[in-house]
Amino acid sequence: MIMSDIKEMSLKYNLHSWSAQKAINPTVVTKAEGIYFWDEDGNQYYDMSSQLVNSNLGHGNKAIVEAIKDQADKIPFIGPGYALDVRSEAAKAIVEASGLEDSKVFFTNAGAESNENAIKIAKQYTDRWKIFSMYRCYHGSSAGAGMLTGEPRKFINEPGAPGFIKYDGPYAYRAPKACKFKTEEDISAFYLELLENQIQYEGPHQIAAIFIETVVGSNGILIPPKGYLEGIRALCDTYGILMVCDEVMAGWYRTGSCFAWQQFNVKPDLVTFAKGSTCGYVPLGGVIVSKKIAESFDHEKMWCGLTYSAHPIGCAAAVATLKEYKRLHIEDNVAAQGKVLGELLANLQAKHACIGESRQIGLFSAIELVKSKETKEPLVAFNYDPDGLMNKIIGMLKAEGFATYSHENMIIIAPPLIITEEELRTAMKMLDKVLDSVDNMIQ
Amino acid sequence: MIMSDIKEMSLKYNLHSWSAQKAINPTVVTKAEGIYFWDEDGNQYYDMSSQLVNSNLGHGNKAIVEAIKDQADKIPFIGPGYALDVRSEAAKAIVEASGLEDSKVFFTNAGAESNENAIKIAKQYTDRWKIFSMYRCYHGSSAGAGMLTGEPRKFINEPGAPGFIKYDGPYAYRAPKACKFKTEEDISAFYLELLENQIQYEGPHQIAAIFIETVVGSNGILIPPKGYLEGIRALCDTYGILMVCDEVMAGWYRTGSCFAWQQFNVKPDLVTFAKGSTCGYVPLGGVIVSKKIAESFDHEKMWCGLTYSAHPIGCAAAVATLKEYKRLHIEDNVAAQGKVLGELLANLQAKHACIGESRQIGLFSAIELVKSKETKEPLVAFNYDPDGLMNKIIGMLKAEGFATYSHENMIIIAPPLIITEEELRTAMKMLDKVLDSVDNMIQ
Ligand SMILES: Cc1ncc(COP(=O)(O)O)c(C=O)c1O
Ligand SMILES: Cc1ncc(COP(=O)(O)O)c(C=O)c1O
Repeated sequence: MIMSDIKEMSLKYNLHSWSAQKAINPTVVTKAEGIYFWDEDGNQYYDMSSQLVNSNLGHGNKAIVEAIKDQADKIPFIGPGYALDVRSEAAKAIVEASGLEDSKVFFTNAGAESNENAIKIAKQYTDRWKIFSMYRCYHGSSAGAGMLTGEPRKFINEPGAPGFIKYDGPYAYRAPKACKFKTEEDISAFYLELLENQIQYEGPHQIAAIFIETVVGSNGILIPPKGYLEGIRALCDTYGILMVCDEVMAGWYRTGSCFAWQQFNVKPDLVTFAKGSTCGYVPLGGVIVSKKIAESFDHEKMWCGLTYSAHPIGCAAAVATLKEYKRLHIEDNVAAQGKVLGELLANLQAKHACIGESRQIGLFSAIELVKSKETKEPLVAFNYDPDGLMNKIIGMLKAEGFATYSHENMIIIAPPLIITEEELRTAMKMLDKVLDSVDNMIQ
Repeated sequence: MIMSDIKEMSLKYNLHSWSAQKAINPTVVTKAEGIYFWDEDGNQYYDMSSQLVNSNLGHGNKAIVEAIKDQADKIPFIGPGYALDVRSEAAKAIVEASGLEDSKVFFTNAGAESNENAIKIAKQYTDRWKIFSMYRCYHGSSAGAGMLTGEPRKFINEPGAPGFIKYDGPYAYRAPKACKFKTEEDISAFYLELLENQIQYEGPHQIAAIFIETVVGSNGILIPPKGYLEGIRALCDTYGILMVCDEVMAGWYRTGSCFAWQQFNVKPDLVTFAKGSTCGYVPLGGVIVSKKIAESFDHEKMWCGLTYSAHPIGCAAAVATLKEYKRLHIEDNVAAQGKVLGELLANLQAKHACIGESRQIGLFSAIELVKSKETKEPLVAFNYDPDGLMNKIIGMLKAEGFATYSHENMIIIAPPLIITEEELRTAMKMLDKVLDSVDNMIQ
């Protein structure tokens, strides 16, 4: 097939996510390898968002590909009611990676479905019906995950079910002006007080779970300040509420540790994951269910199920992916390159008038674009960018060979975890150059 | 790994769908080929439900496996924003199979997600917020699909969102006793009158869509009587409501035609599919969106999206699967074996006291077990089988080498569409034998 046909057919037959279909002009991808991919004209791109922050090991990883091919040859599919070597192995490997002793895994296809099932498990276990989740978190686009979501992608699901309550989480850069924070602990204390009040107002005995993206991803890499997650854990313990960490994006070494919560002094009751568990080579997601909750389903029927739960090829890919994280010493590389990335971002922030704040943990980072560092006015208003300014900036980056995506006034920088220092420095120069132009725009 | 370890690990680390975990004893599957699979002791099973009615081409189909391996070698994943040969081809092949001219496809991972997105598309297109769906239909287990669902698997999602309204659809065998139907048309007229009244009560101008499983699957293969689907189409046209056919189970030649609605004189506005589109070898689902609705997203952003929309390996598998349906003349085999199956079921129904009714279309069938043909009392009460009687019967079938599943008082018989007459006759003898025992139970 010639390339122009592929694009034409794509526009004729495919509906593309989150888009007005006439407003897009999808690049035809012809090759992908390591941290790079290439378009129909042979242009090379640095994949600086690991696609949708899922290609943690980059493209063309041989071990994952071989695992997929191998399982396809053996048993590509058998119903979830049957036991299969790779199903057992994948669950075991994930439980061990979590360090949550005697936990179990319920497998799904992807991130939204993982959160859907975490909601159901939390409601069934606690026999309570209210669910707390945080503004600015994204949890997926199906109705349940959409009702958890605390940003505009939730609107299409409304009116939602009763009982989905949103709380305001730590985002110090845009905290109410009256707040005078001296330390991270101050920030945590403020937001935890707000949260505890809200728990009281909603009736703690009615609240099944508090969901949180351990580190908020697409909405701008919001890193929990010191003590915040510990504070949520304490509130959950006090009121018998389950703590659910959404690690769909933050998980699988993105932030440095296997799961982001492992860098804080907490153990969640439920952990939802997807993306990095197979690097997206085949769809797979799941919920890690801690011991006491898993045991509650020993004799009580668990009301969760889906045709492709624990899909054999997905499980085989997960086993291989987790081994690759170890073999390639990904944890060490994230530590090393995360440090470089942090320094580069600090330099950019100092240099560019358009950067209000940059935030980074491991290889998970964002820059928040503003019209003025002083006023902090966002480069584009919340949920309103009629001129497509952010798209233009993403286009300029792409023209330089720097592929990523934006959300609101944020640009995501989250390259594959196999990136080398040289590659990182080269890519960040492209960003630097484009930010010069953005500086000019706001002058 | 030795077999006992696989099972032990499965029980230790995996949470299994729709089960109390200590009540199950998962068979370890070691091989699957054609319409058969084998357990750890070398026992062979006829796969008489195509797993969860998804393995339409049976196990080990070489063409699908090769397509998966090929795509894994090329580009296993690239974000849904990019165009890719297999994405374009898969959408084109599905649109062509549907015969819905100038329709487009939005791809998802599986059945529930397809219905989730159909809900959102219908709400966005019509700017209305109520959704009708039918009792006894199953649409998936995520919150949106769960709120559509009209049987007990919906309870865990309650309280649901307002606006999800259930109507009573045709199920002549258990129609209210006052009904005296002479013809299929009588049945349709009765249920359509009920439905139209309900549309009036709910306010037609508020109703976005009417969902229906074109042929109700797991809840007992309820086949729409003559004129019923046409009647729904007419109501939808009158009131500006979208007609959504859930073909997740009924689609892809299961009932004889590629989509089940093609055997009736209707064209739906949205069609949801999954399962047979890849035979489950890799997860893939989607929504076929008719021309006028697809066009409405030309200039208006479509509020649907997911990380794995149009997954490359899923799309590659779909292209191969659709070609295999043609190459293997599946439509002809379903016609031929469907006829044999119909005759065998009629014989069983005549012979066995425990069969209240058998229903069949193509290779999609169920027998409904009763305590008495006279009273029609179901063998197990609705949503209540404390002694696990149905599980026992499924276990007896399995011991004969006949693998399938049950739902309520129904046993599903839906073998791979490649089954031969000899295989079908052999398997149905196993069923016959077990039904002798069930006859004895109710005497
Ligand atoms: C934190 C988080 N949760 C859930 C999801 C939903 O995952 P999926 O798109 O695989 O359904 C995403 C997707 O970006 C995510 O970032
Ligand atoms: C008619 C129908 N719709 C939707 C679904 C849900 O599909 P999945 O389990 O892939 O989410 C099913 C599953 O059995 C189904 O039979």
